[in-house]
Amino acid sequence: MASITAKALDTLEATFAASGREEKVAIIGAGNWGSAAAMIIGRNCAKLDIFDDNVTVWCLEEKVDGGNLTDVINSTHVNVKYLPDHKLPENVRAEPDLVKSVAGATLLVFVLPHQFLARTCKTLKGHLAENVKAISLIKGIDFDDSGPQLMTNVIKRELGIEACALSGANIANEIAAGKFCESTIGYESKETGALFFALFNEPNFRISLVQGVAAPQVFGAIKNIVALGAGFCDALEMGNNTKAALMRIGLIEMYRFATQYFQGVDTATMVESCGMADLITTCMGGRNRRVAEAYARSRLEKGDDHRTWEDLEAEMLNGQKLQGTGAAKEVFQILTRDNLLDKFPFLVTLYRIAFEGKPIEDVVHIPEEHFLPSSLTSKAAATVASA
Amino acid sequence: MASITAKALDTLEATFAASGREEKVAIIGAGNWGSAAAMIIGRNCAKLDIFDDNVTVWCLEEKVDGGNLTDVINSTHVNVKYLPDHKLPENVRAEPDLVKSVAGATLLVFVLPHQFLARTCKTLKGHLAENVKAISLIKGIDFDDSGPQLMTNVIKRELGIEACALSGANIANEIAAGKFCESTIGYESKETGALFFALFNEPNFRISLVQGVAAPQVFGAIKNIVALGAGFCDALEMGNNTKAALMRIGLIEMYRFATQYFQGVDTATMVESCGMADLITTCMGGRNRRVAEAYARSRLEKGDDHRTWEDLEAEMLNGQKLQGTGAAKEVFQILTRDNLLDKFPFLVTLYRIAFEGKPIEDVVHIPEEHFLPSSLTSKAAATVASA
Repeated sequence: MASITAKALDTLEATFAASGREEKVAIIGAGNWGSAAAMIIGRNCAKLDIFDDNVTVWCLEEKVDGGNLTDVINSTHVNVKYLPDHKLPENVRAEPDLVKSVAGATLLVFVLPHQFLARTCKTLKGHLAENVKAISLIKGIDFDDSGPQLMTNVIKRELGIEACALSGANIANEIAAGKFCESTIGYESKETGALFFALFNEPNFRISLVQGVAAPQVFGAIKNIVALGAGFCDALEMGNNTKAALMRIGLIEMYRFATQYFQGVDTATMVESCGMADLITTCMGGRNRRVAEAYARSRLEKGDDHRTWEDLEAEMLNGQKLQGTGAAKEVFQILTRDNLLDKFPFLVTLYRIAFEGKPIEDVVHIPEEHFLPSSLTSKAAATVASA
Repeated sequence: MASITAKALDTLEATFAASGREEKVAIIGAGNWGSAAAMIIGRNCAKLDIFDDNVTVWCLEEKVDGGNLTDVINSTHVNVKYLPDHKLPENVRAEPDLVKSVAGATLLVFVLPHQFLARTCKTLKGHLAENVKAISLIKGIDFDDSGPQLMTNVIKRELGIEACALSGANIANEIAAGKFCESTIGYESKETGALFFALFNEPNFRISLVQGVAAPQVFGAIKNIVALGAGFCDALEMGNNTKAALMRIGLIEMYRFATQYFQGVDTATMVESCGMADLITTCMGGRNRRVAEAYARSRLEKGDDHRTWEDLEAEMLNGQKLQGTGAAKEVFQILTRDNLLDKFPFLVTLYRIAFEGKPIEDVVHIPEEHFLPSSLTSKAAATVASA
């Protein structure tokens, strides 16, 4: 059986060769995740004819050991500040000037903290080539008065360009170390999806494509709320079956949330890396799960004298922030505004445990509403309802 | 928001009340799982008007402390041999005579070791009431010369009656202890599905219904092969992201296998308790994962002098059997016969590692074929292929 991927890449290459066109890549952000992405992108651009060999990565300038970080990167090929243990490919060049970094670029890879995205786009406006396409590697989503906001929509709004989204069960250091993992790219047009597939797919970083950009981004945010439930479950020592049930119930509500607020969410996205797999990882080992377990143990042991989220975040996370608690608040607010609390009993329960003193044990008191009326189980609901 | 479930049960009760008909339940098997099921069934039959209060459980007679097990159960309401720490409801009566146990029964719950199913059905033949319906709680499937065999098909073949299947992320002792867990019932006709929903659903044992009986049974068997991969991954200390990726890839091949050999498998079954959740549990804590990790560590440390599967099974499982190794062999044989090895590269890799000396590290060498041609990702495949 021939490899469909390899065949597809051949076709893609032939098409581009005939047109004489090459895609040129600029990576916007050179932190830990941006640097790991630059390793993959650099290798694929060197290897595949459809891409210009030279990759530029915009790097916010800072001083390291008396020199400029970009100079260090460009002379040693190591991002000594954010990915010190790995070499970047030599065709990747760091550029401190944001506008210069995108000169001639046709593919933009946004990989920077979400709070900087809008202003970064504003700076880029008017400096982009024709037909530029983007992909967002930014974790999570924002919430504003109008509801949940996708990073891809910020890019579209500010720059008027098409934007894909990449999300999955992977972390930068493991990707850089070549550990096998997967990721999901959500796309709007299939041609753009195929291009970014070619840019990211490697034997140890396997990409699956899904139609639609919302689910990968929404799942990446809501999973951190579900991880609170996993932590509560661990504190109660309820065992793997109960925990697996809560993860599953969480995934269903993640999907429901995505379909509630966005169009065109493909059911199959739930079993992609950005869905089930990322959720599993987050509920087994992540910081949100870990702090939630500590929070629940403190409440179970000390009652009203328990540690607060802020205490535990400060003690346990070494300057990092919890994402699940913030997301739980944002989601609760938006569901309250939209009169949808009944439709998301598990997410609401997690919020009420985390912030309204609801007993930890209530993590498994999930109303029957959860189980039947979803679009997924609508056939079953109809069955029982009409029986 | 009213509970659809409660409403449905009201409707079901009203329908039955109007007809004056009651369903009478017989449970075939009084082992650990059968006894835990009897606790739920007994409570629901006492509570819901659509069921006759009296539940019979067929119990293979044996001697305990000089008395008959059935006598002990019927006097103490405790199955001292197989579920000693919990009381059965008083409306559950043990019956040592198989044919007598089904007298007047309209719902049969099969919960006995799979190798006894066919002969048990043969004994029952000709002794059943009209319009009897069955559900199988039996774990796994069989393989014979014609391919994978569903327990529900054995029941249909031998008795000519409709059979549902129940499977999920749960184990008997945790269910008996009232720990929160879920299960999935696959049905052929919705009326029968609704009946068994009513028979099993409880606040701490949540049932979801899916159309089709094959997937829950197939998933329950193939998950044990995937658990070998989880064990190999643990031995290699590859971390949660890699392990989550392998679980996801395993779920896709479980689904592919079910659709390859059976009709009418609903994609959504993957995210039911019998799919994703049961797989997570099995890959986190089960015996197949545990022994596979020990096997892989032995090979990594000792090379050709490594412990065999038989050694480890004897040492580690205290008389229990591995299910994943046997299932891996059966699946490999059937895929070889049907010329389908290319379509299941992960399951085939697991077999080759387990039985053909393929390096443990190859657990993550999954060919690109895996990722694209499945029915799930066919849109993505078409995208890339046509790009």
